[in-house]
Amino acid sequence: MGSNDRLFEVSRRAMLSAFAAFTAFPMLLHTPAMAQTAVTDPLPSWNDTVTKKAIVTFVERVAKQGSPDLVPSAERIATFDNDGTLWAEQPMYFQLAFALDRVKALAPLHPEWKDNEPFASLLKGDLKAALGGGEAAIFQIVTVTHSGMTTVEFDQIVRDWIATARHPVTGRLYTEMVYQPMLELLAYLRGNGFKTFIVSGGGIDFMRVFADRIYGIPPEQIVGSSGKLSFELRDGKPVLMKLPELNFIDDKAGKPVGIQMHIGRRPIAAFGNSDGDLQMLEWAKGGAGVRFALIVHHTDAEREWAYDRTSSIGRLDKALDTAEAMGWTVVDMKNDWKEIFPFGSK
Amino acid sequence: MGSNDRLFEVSRRAMLSAFAAFTAFPMLLHTPAMAQTAVTDPLPSWNDTVTKKAIVTFVERVAKQGSPDLVPSAERIATFDNDGTLWAEQPMYFQLAFALDRVKALAPLHPEWKDNEPFASLLKGDLKAALGGGEAAIFQIVTVTHSGMTTVEFDQIVRDWIATARHPVTGRLYTEMVYQPMLELLAYLRGNGFKTFIVSGGGIDFMRVFADRIYGIPPEQIVGSSGKLSFELRDGKPVLMKLPELNFIDDKAGKPVGIQMHIGRRPIAAFGNSDGDLQMLEWAKGGAGVRFALIVHHTDAEREWAYDRTSSIGRLDKALDTAEAMGWTVVDMKNDWKEIFPFGSK
Repeated sequence: MGSNDRLFEVSRRAMLSAFAAFTAFPMLLHTPAMAQTAVTDPLPSWNDTVTKKAIVTFVERVAKQGSPDLVPSAERIATFDNDGTLWAEQPMYFQLAFALDRVKALAPLHPEWKDNEPFASLLKGDLKAALGGGEAAIFQIVTVTHSGMTTVEFDQIVRDWIATARHPVTGRLYTEMVYQPMLELLAYLRGNGFKTFIVSGGGIDFMRVFADRIYGIPPEQIVGSSGKLSFELRDGKPVLMKLPELNFIDDKAGKPVGIQMHIGRRPIAAFGNSDGDLQMLEWAKGGAGVRFALIVHHTDAEREWAYDRTSSIGRLDKALDTAEAMGWTVVDMKNDWKEIFPFGSK
Repeated sequence: MGSNDRLFEVSRRAMLSAFAAFTAFPMLLHTPAMAQTAVTDPLPSWNDTVTKKAIVTFVERVAKQGSPDLVPSAERIATFDNDGTLWAEQPMYFQLAFALDRVKALAPLHPEWKDNEPFASLLKGDLKAALGGGEAAIFQIVTVTHSGMTTVEFDQIVRDWIATARHPVTGRLYTEMVYQPMLELLAYLRGNGFKTFIVSGGGIDFMRVFADRIYGIPPEQIVGSSGKLSFELRDGKPVLMKLPELNFIDDKAGKPVGIQMHIGRRPIAAFGNSDGDLQMLEWAKGGAGVRFALIVHHTDAEREWAYDRTSSIGRLDKALDTAEAMGWTVVDMKNDWKEIFPFGSK
């Protein structure tokens, strides 16, 4: 992991925001006040720009009865990246925040961590030094926090954490840090016969805990990175143990592979925000018939974050060039989105 | 692979059967003549035995409004083995028949096969010698027939084969060799809010070609064994290449693992026919609340095949003992099934 400057620049603003309490989960019931005048608009949080028009045109072409480009409903597969596409990913991937919190919670059981990196630095509060070990350090942190327990135990650990852990900048629950326009888009697609999937580099078992509740996407429609599992009998009862061994990384060229493994159909629409999504979008666009690829470009430093080509998180460089060259749809968050989060903005 | 005696005993009867032409795919539209008196019975091909009662009782407990054991529809996950559970598996797994046919079709491109086992024996028509090499021989046959092409090419190869290849005993298309009572059971479960999945040791990409058409189970609800895939650009177009490298074996203890990887929920009902399904059934039964496990016991040598504890294909030994000890439901095919295949019986 390169420089963490951005991480710290943003982290300094932690807890500076004080929003009114927001307890209900956003889901799809939320209607921003600004949008209430357009009751028949399925995408009220989208400004009337070419981006919104491109989405609506695509959906009507493939889903409207009588369209010459009609696609059977069963083949209306749409795949979405998660971090930075459906919810925020700054100042760090939320799953990494989970892992760091878990290291602290588990520390009393691991006195040896005081003498071993990256744990020693992490427990001293020096995140920069802890993550200075790069991918190997992160792998160690993920391993000790994501293995050695059953799938049921892990599910409960994530459930407990995500019910209370709060975003360092906004003070919101992580599950509130979802993009209102994307929630509307998910609902709009499903209302037009699409089946929506998450295809993320994030952990498959991590996302499954909350994706149904916050996005309406059930566990069986989540594709993600994973560790190996082992079926065992523990006290005579069957369990699935999470092993400290990598199974699959669902990122970059892994995304089309993950899609084939899990879905077995090529999506006709794919949505991402970084170079990690490039191959998924290429795969979706490479099929016959009408296809749609969309990139969320983070251009709004005021209401969300602004980052792209040089960001260590959610780097968008080659995929942005490809999008421009190929005419894919690019969301200019600042100008295309009327609302950012269900509670407003950062 | 142990003795192939059974294989040859049964194969000798190949093509002895002469049934009336049957061209329509069976699916769920088929209504056996014998069952037409019971129009409201969702399981007309099942005799009124304790087995049928156990199925109906389970479904009503978990799916009927007002039942104290009601399970939310989203959690009504049912997983089915394929070979020997949804369609026949004698005298050999149908996917192996596909692989053998492919070796013959590919032989002109591989002159070296004349001098290398298992191909040399296979091409001379000596199946027994070819398969005498055991798992290593079968692995070689599967590798050369299931890799080295794109997923799209493989799909088309299977599609072409299965449209015309016929079962050596019945002379029927393989897609006709499905169990009418199980088609009814799939439809009955779906009609009661269940989501039905295949969880099979068979190849995931192989089954996806026909499972939607013959079982009403879409590609994204198929879990199976798989080889590794590689995302590549070929002539500038993205493809997924099937590599000659094993990814996952979805059998025995692999079945609960495959279920977690793909579905992320524990099934409340599981259906199998062999020791390869034991752990899947244990996993389904091991959860809280009302659960159902069913084993199809092949007891009808006249209308189908009779085999269990010593069979080299679909061996049912430990799982039968467990079923009896645990009180799982066991289908006695001869006495529980009024009909076997949509076209009648063998």
